Amino acid sequence: MISLLPVGGIGEVSPGDELADMVLRAVELEDYDVLVVTQKVVSKAEGRLVPLDADDPQARRRVILGESVRVLREREGMLITETRHGFVCANAGVDLSNVAAGSAALLPVDPDRSARHIRDAILARTGLHTGVIVSDTFGRTWRNGLTDVAIGCAGIAAVIDLRGTTDAGGRELAVTQVCIADELAGAAELVKGKASGVPVVVVRGVDRSWFRESSVRAEVVRHPSGDLFR
Amino acid sequence: MISLLPVGGIGEVSPGDELADMVLRAVELEDYDVLVVTQKVVSKAEGRLVPLDADDPQARRRVILGESVRVLREREGMLITETRHGFVCANAGVDLSNVAAGSAALLPVDPDRSARHIRDAILARTGLHTGVIVSDTFGRTWRNGLTDVAIGCAGIAAVIDLRGTTDAGGRELAVTQVCIADELAGAAELVKGKASGVPVVVVRGVDRSWFRESSVRAEVVRHPSGDLFR
Repeated sequence: MISLLPVGGIGEVSPGDELADMVLRAVELEDYDVLVVTQKVVSKAEGRLVPLDADDPQARRRVILGESVRVLREREGMLITETRHGFVCANAGVDLSNVAAGSAALLPVDPDRSARHIRDAILARTGLHTGVIVSDTFGRTWRNGLTDVAIGCAGIAAVIDLRGTTDAGGRELAVTQVCIADELAGAAELVKGKASGVPVVVVRGVDRSWFRESSVRAEVVRHPSGDLFR
Repeated sequence: MISLLPVGGIGEVSPGDELADMVLRAVELEDYDVLVVTQKVVSKAEGRLVPLDADDPQARRRVILGESVRVLREREGMLITETRHGFVCANAGVDLSNVAAGSAALLPVDPDRSARHIRDAILARTGLHTGVIVSDTFGRTWRNGLTDVAIGCAGIAAVIDLRGTTDAGGRELAVTQVCIADELAGAAELVKGKASGVPVVVVRGVDRSWFRESSVRAEVVRHPSGDLFR
């Protein structure tokens, strides 16, 4: 059994804040918990905020292009770009919601590092082994609606590889690489809500064999050469 | 808080089996539980099995094309097609694993109807109001690893619409349509395992306002005209 526990009461996050301390004040963690932390509070803690007039589409476009290495599509003011991290998403993850008026939040420079920083701080303060996922809300091709996915992780596998294991009938499973980091991020979203002030979710009961060093950049970001849709 | 409860001990599923009865024998359901049911057992119960020699790539290709309305890409024996339901996925969802040797499982003809059938049977037998999601494992563009997504649903919203609500700072959220059906399916996968004989997961604690009539076909399948990547 897995439990998804929303963590409220963390308070407003400002540049320089230590998220691990804010989380530890708000919730009693256990060994092998996975923390899913919303990108927005990570970006705020890391000072990844820029002044931006929401009513100036050209200024917004400049900020988005500054975060991008490639534009894949553009329609009705929405840019689909590839970010410097290799994520393909709308508007390079630049976000005007849940930040102060007149400013926008950019994605963390290195979300895997952000996750490691939180994980290491929790370990140093408590001795607890945890996994940390930094999540953001992305669209998908072919399907309506957004889902939360992992943009960074530490201490927990991003992708588990079931290649070579056998199915219930003893037949070898051809290829089953499961992106548990995205499934954990999406699961966390279910108790988060967009406007309810729950920037962190604890996932308790995750398979212990999934806890290992990992990164979204290395395991999830698909190299363009292996990608059929660009 | 949400709990993800794996339901084992359902037993081998055969054509004509009533999945609702098998689930009710295996787990004590509660009002407003969401059941996530793996496509494979739905296809078996509905007799969506065809004879197929796994070592005959041409026969496999014919079966896949028979389930498809359009081929989007082909590489190294993997076809990305659009199914008759409008799903874009690998090999039209035709699956050789966890079925008897010499046969393959096709997707249900109408997975929303499959979900309604299970939901209605549970209601008729117990009086309990539940949501039912039929899930399958799909790849994604730009990201490695597969995740479980919803291919059918009943009694639970597929997409919830947060457009027009305000963020924690009172600013209106521009567009936030969240595909909770896919997030529920992915969450369930975390306690399912591919080879462990857990074809059903109960998700308990889901927001009651999300229970309503819905369908994946109507809410999740994106019309090609709104799709930037085909």
